[in-house]
Amino acid sequence: MRAELIDGKAIAATIRGEIARDVAALTARGVVPGLAVVLVGDDAASATYVGAKEKASVEAGMKGGTIRLPASTSQQELLALVERLNGDPAVHGILVQMPLPKHIDPDTVIRHIRPDKDVDGFHPENVGKLLIGHTDGFVSCTPAGVIELLVRSGVDTRGAEAVIIGRSNIVGKPMAALLVQGRAGGDATVTVCHSRTKDLAAHTRRADILIAAIGRAEMITGDMIKPGAVVIDVGMNSVPDATKAKGSRLCGDVHFASAVEVASKITPVPGGVGPMTIAMLLRNTVRAAERTLG
Amino acid sequence: MRAELIDGKAIAATIRGEIARDVAALTARGVVPGLAVVLVGDDAASATYVGAKEKASVEAGMKGGTIRLPASTSQQELLALVERLNGDPAVHGILVQMPLPKHIDPDTVIRHIRPDKDVDGFHPENVGKLLIGHTDGFVSCTPAGVIELLVRSGVDTRGAEAVIIGRSNIVGKPMAALLVQGRAGGDATVTVCHSRTKDLAAHTRRADILIAAIGRAEMITGDMIKPGAVVIDVGMNSVPDATKAKGSRLCGDVHFASAVEVASKITPVPGGVGPMTIAMLLRNTVRAAERTLG
Repeated sequence: MRAELIDGKAIAATIRGEIARDVAALTARGVVPGLAVVLVGDDAASATYVGAKEKASVEAGMKGGTIRLPASTSQQELLALVERLNGDPAVHGILVQMPLPKHIDPDTVIRHIRPDKDVDGFHPENVGKLLIGHTDGFVSCTPAGVIELLVRSGVDTRGAEAVIIGRSNIVGKPMAALLVQGRAGGDATVTVCHSRTKDLAAHTRRADILIAAIGRAEMITGDMIKPGAVVIDVGMNSVPDATKAKGSRLCGDVHFASAVEVASKITPVPGGVGPMTIAMLLRNTVRAAERTLG
Repeated sequence: MRAELIDGKAIAATIRGEIARDVAALTARGVVPGLAVVLVGDDAASATYVGAKEKASVEAGMKGGTIRLPASTSQQELLALVERLNGDPAVHGILVQMPLPKHIDPDTVIRHIRPDKDVDGFHPENVGKLLIGHTDGFVSCTPAGVIELLVRSGVDTRGAEAVIIGRSNIVGKPMAALLVQGRAGGDATVTVCHSRTKDLAAHTRRADILIAAIGRAEMITGDMIKPGAVVIDVGMNSVPDATKAKGSRLCGDVHFASAVEVASKITPVPGGVGPMTIAMLLRNTVRAAERTLG
């Protein structure tokens, strides 16, 4: 058996098409969704992510702008900027790219963003709405993207054994909160595993839906996967590879070559979860803009 | 084997003693912790709960007061009262007893309470802080009480298989959020089961710590429990019993007689989790008062 690929790139493109139509409709009503991305410092990876977000938002017809600040920016200066964006009616979504320089407390910054502009879904109020099951907040983009991948691939989560590996605030915890809710795309029996879990393979082997978000290259091998399981690989790791021109290659938390022989569906890395994250960011921004219309 | 009883009544009494000392210390500094309980309508069970909360707060040396409103109170009137309590510096904790009459939306009321006075821990901001792992919010009282029972009974949650049955916003979900955090009283591998779970017994049988919060009388029987497991029974059900004067008796979600033969530790009903809920409410109120001192 060879698993069917879940083509995140194609699904994300479909969603971005839907979003472009929503943006056009909003624009016709006089509201151009605006996304403000804030980048502090000159981390190369962050600059790449931010560039991709700005490009995608502009392609969807939004007003996207990146505000670049030097690494020496003080916390107070950054908070003042957030304050200004909070009050700017043309800005519907605010995203402060993480990680921030060490002298700035990320939680203080996140809490400063108006919850109704927090399109990253990291503000405690949005995280709380997610866990409670209220749908008027924002869900963080990666776990929201995973649910979209599952739903659009025809995976029934209801009653499924979902096992999440990793308990980060960006992926593992909100992922669990989404999958446990009593509604479409949820209703799964959810287990969260992490570094303290004693027999990881015993858990992964009973998963109908296995979500790997550990940040350790190719840790989940085919023998740890239940035959026929759906495998979602959130990992994005760079490993040395002498056969590549740049000396490294990108891989996930799942050992793809062995997993693809056991799973029924699997996301590749790259081209799986990654493209969905930006699509969900755009969707959150459209929703933020829609909500200003009441 | 016969399980050791986890004596929630005794543990709660100890905690209430600690709280009384904290209250005395705060009072000496000029701050008398104040808890305002709001009861709308004349539901008999609610009146009992509210009476117990007021009594406990006064016994601990706090300023406790119950505001009783008729069932005909409008949502607007209730929100106006909450508003007033939000602004009253003598009130550190606000608790609106649930359930509310049908014409009042509980979520609207909960969101109206200032998060820093929300000692029930139901406001989205507090729920979000809980899931994120921030400790400057308030944790809802029943799950907080369960953690206290575990810790004070010497149960090591680290690396344990914790299985929670029930996904309510009052118990199941915040319970999972607490147990998964990477700190003392957490670090468990957490599974949340519910009505859609396919093979419930397979999950309960692998639990080192089993937490039943389903609201179905004596559903969890001894054969569903792993020998040596710690069993926490959050249930509180009334079942017919002709041998009792009032024709009914109180029981948990766990079938105690069979479970006590298999578990290593178990909470009784009543006298297990119940008394802890009020103790945690008092502790949250003390913390709310402490935080006003900065």
